[in-house]
Amino acid sequence: MAISSSNTALPFKPHQQQLFRSNNQFSAPLIGQKTKPITSLDRQKLATRSHTIPRVLSKPTDSVPFSLADFQTEAKDNEQKTHEPKSPPLTDTWREIHGESDWVGLLDPMDALLRSELLRYGEMAQACYDAFDFDPFSKYCGSCKYTRRQDFFTRLGMADSGYDVSRYLYATSNINLPNFFKKSRWPKVWSTNANWIGYVAVSNDERSKVLGRRDIVIAWRGTVTRLEWIADLMDYLRPISSDKIPCPDPTVKVESGFLDLYTDKKENCNFCKYSAREQILTEVSRLIEMYPNEELSITITGHSLGSALALLSGYDIVETGINVLGDSRAIPVCVFSFSGPRVGNVRFKERVERLGLKVLRVVNVHDIVPRSPGFIFNESMPQMLMKAAEGLPWSYSHVGVELALDHKNSPFLKSDGDLVCAHNLEAHLHLLDGYHGKGHRFVLASGRDPALVNKGCDFLKDHYMVPPHWRQDENKGMVRSADGRWTQPDRPKLDEHPNCMLRRLRQLGLGQ
Amino acid sequence: MAISSSNTALPFKPHQQQLFRSNNQFSAPLIGQKTKPITSLDRQKLATRSHTIPRVLSKPTDSVPFSLADFQTEAKDNEQKTHEPKSPPLTDTWREIHGESDWVGLLDPMDALLRSELLRYGEMAQACYDAFDFDPFSKYCGSCKYTRRQDFFTRLGMADSGYDVSRYLYATSNINLPNFFKKSRWPKVWSTNANWIGYVAVSNDERSKVLGRRDIVIAWRGTVTRLEWIADLMDYLRPISSDKIPCPDPTVKVESGFLDLYTDKKENCNFCKYSAREQILTEVSRLIEMYPNEELSITITGHSLGSALALLSGYDIVETGINVLGDSRAIPVCVFSFSGPRVGNVRFKERVERLGLKVLRVVNVHDIVPRSPGFIFNESMPQMLMKAAEGLPWSYSHVGVELALDHKNSPFLKSDGDLVCAHNLEAHLHLLDGYHGKGHRFVLASGRDPALVNKGCDFLKDHYMVPPHWRQDENKGMVRSADGRWTQPDRPKLDEHPNCMLRRLRQLGLGQ
Repeated sequence: MAISSSNTALPFKPHQQQLFRSNNQFSAPLIGQKTKPITSLDRQKLATRSHTIPRVLSKPTDSVPFSLADFQTEAKDNEQKTHEPKSPPLTDTWREIHGESDWVGLLDPMDALLRSELLRYGEMAQACYDAFDFDPFSKYCGSCKYTRRQDFFTRLGMADSGYDVSRYLYATSNINLPNFFKKSRWPKVWSTNANWIGYVAVSNDERSKVLGRRDIVIAWRGTVTRLEWIADLMDYLRPISSDKIPCPDPTVKVESGFLDLYTDKKENCNFCKYSAREQILTEVSRLIEMYPNEELSITITGHSLGSALALLSGYDIVETGINVLGDSRAIPVCVFSFSGPRVGNVRFKERVERLGLKVLRVVNVHDIVPRSPGFIFNESMPQMLMKAAEGLPWSYSHVGVELALDHKNSPFLKSDGDLVCAHNLEAHLHLLDGYHGKGHRFVLASGRDPALVNKGCDFLKDHYMVPPHWRQDENKGMVRSADGRWTQPDRPKLDEHPNCMLRRLRQLGLGQ
Repeated sequence: MAISSSNTALPFKPHQQQLFRSNNQFSAPLIGQKTKPITSLDRQKLATRSHTIPRVLSKPTDSVPFSLADFQTEAKDNEQKTHEPKSPPLTDTWREIHGESDWVGLLDPMDALLRSELLRYGEMAQACYDAFDFDPFSKYCGSCKYTRRQDFFTRLGMADSGYDVSRYLYATSNINLPNFFKKSRWPKVWSTNANWIGYVAVSNDERSKVLGRRDIVIAWRGTVTRLEWIADLMDYLRPISSDKIPCPDPTVKVESGFLDLYTDKKENCNFCKYSAREQILTEVSRLIEMYPNEELSITITGHSLGSALALLSGYDIVETGINVLGDSRAIPVCVFSFSGPRVGNVRFKERVERLGLKVLRVVNVHDIVPRSPGFIFNESMPQMLMKAAEGLPWSYSHVGVELALDHKNSPFLKSDGDLVCAHNLEAHLHLLDGYHGKGHRFVLASGRDPALVNKGCDFLKDHYMVPPHWRQDENKGMVRSADGRWTQPDRPKLDEHPNCMLRRLRQLGLGQ
């Protein structure tokens, strides 16, 4: 079957399984896919080119038991048959994709290269969940299951990511967010105070060539599944400068719990004796020093509560100015966030904009988290009322550009998915993959497997026969030793912090 | 530390971790263990020898967080230090162990060789659970996960079992036990009518030498976890002869549902076009023919509802007389059952005894299943009342010799385990391993791993840090294909029935 390249909708023929169509038209190299030769178009062309998105499909239906296995075949067929023009290379267009022009003209219709880059960073945020040990019966509960140096991306099936993890991030669990942290029941645990909360990675030489710059990524973990942490938020805005972040304006405020998570530490803990903030600032400055003569970018990603940390840390980097080089050039900093809550007040939003931090927020309109905190006073109020409410501690505002998805548009998903489904990161990546703009039909662009949606939830329609919550370790990590006993194997010692921490903290004016 | 070889209880010293002690005194080769040279004692000696069971330990305690890892070390230490006399070889004693003398003198105190044999057969029953695919999202739901020929015992970590599976058993799910069968949600499923329900295996040459005979094992699967099937029982006793089982006495009756399960078939189904009964009788007679000049035994095992099938099929074999050889010698038939319900009435019990079928029932006194069906009228009533109730359809009676265990005696287990825990087969094997007789302390005899208890339930005390329900497949069996898609791999075609079935059925007088 040929692909329609016009905007005319084809009649829906479920029996021909037109539901799944790969659109390689503007596809960028995705993790795990080989890069293909790409024609050279400049970024003006990128912003103004006509979008000829195939309109094959799609309409939710429950009556046709199409299977995901058929999709596989169709995608392959399609690959062989179509010869659409390729996307311009990232080397030409990455600044635009990275938000230099606030994604104007790239979101509706949806730019294919931006979409695939969002998927790529989204998968780096997803990696934080997939690698996190949240089993309270594990003696490593609260840590990362894989070692940073040897096997982080490999064990996650992302060996071709083109990034090396340069540092693991830890936060102290001694703060007022009991439903965020996971604690082991073991008496002798790897740490009683710390939780693994994300990582910093940097693109390798080969990937940097494709990306057009050396990319430093910070990925923050969110909450594992449940949404109770929203209820834990104190709904209390605190001046960001109260925690030694050098903001000149004391009316710039953020949610107190997020600020605690970002700045708190525990002196006698090997892992969280430095705050997440200190870990991030020292690591980013170290990496910038490592690549003195290269073009660099800083890309921060996170889902859910991790999205709040992404915004806070992005803001912090531009506020402290550690992204500004000796010659006053600023390394662009961008946040790609997924289903994130509001973080601060309107002044915080204005401050972020003034400092040039770019924020693209991917949300699902049925997800309650982006509506938290600040159900009553938020940026959607009439401006006059908002102005009046500005001094109140509960006047929250979102920051940046929103990309609103709607899970009811995907024919793969149950329409009655619960709140946890609507908030799921894999579901967002699936929705993104099928998104081509407001009012456009849902067409999967990358061939990314919809089965991934059910890794940690029960959201795919039952007739696809993908087991709900299917991602699980064999025997919960128990292995049988040579003498027949079932035990939890010991893991390699977790990295603590580099020796240069204290020196770097002093350099950054953060020394004690 | 030395092991006490007297009956004097040692004071309880939890800090010295005396809790776990390997008793190799009468140990028989267990699956996965090497056989050791054994002294030659005749079976009179076996029955009358003095039992010098070590009394190290044990008293339930919650206060001492001893770990299972320590157990491992202790067991090894113990192995090196102790030089107790070994058990007589099975070649001398297997008839006794197999119930020839109704286990008189072997149960209290508990004979070590019988215990280890019970564990071995119990593990063969447990294999039915571990190999069963009960995920309704699997297209093979209701089947055995592993192939019969290549990898059944290997995949279960029982490569050294010394048995070859000669046949898989299927039953039709079209009977009145809805909570026993598992049905896939796939539209195109391996079978809409059949469920895998057990297997027949036969000892190989090497193992047969150790066992003293060629052993034919029939292992029946029970219900996976829940106990609803008890409620499904119609509590209705039907004459066993009504289903063409050649019982001369029409007052011999068994529970109608069990009889259905054993005798029903579905003509147009490749897997259950023969009843479980027909499969068993033809297979056993085929195997007997295969080894004409050898000493043979038939050992039947099962847990829960599988225990009912074990008893029924054992009875059937001796009633039809397929175990009787040309020279009128009868191959001994024995049932080792675990947490089985009552199966028939007093007449059934008497008939079983008359026919020489030996039955040893291992139960946990806190398990409700052995009290079903027949809560009101059963064998524990005064004999006169029982006699009066005999004609009533609900006057059930247990058969054979009972070995009653008590989960409150194990210091490893939570005392408040629920009904499903109390019924769990792995829990029974653990209790058996620690059982030395009525009033004797609980001492693990074989070094069998207590962690196995939590494979499919939440019964071990939390401080052992063994995850509850830990036995699970990686990613619920989903695997990532070369092109990055997650799918359920196809499995090799399941064995149907051998070509000789019809001929054999005619030979047995069962042909249509």
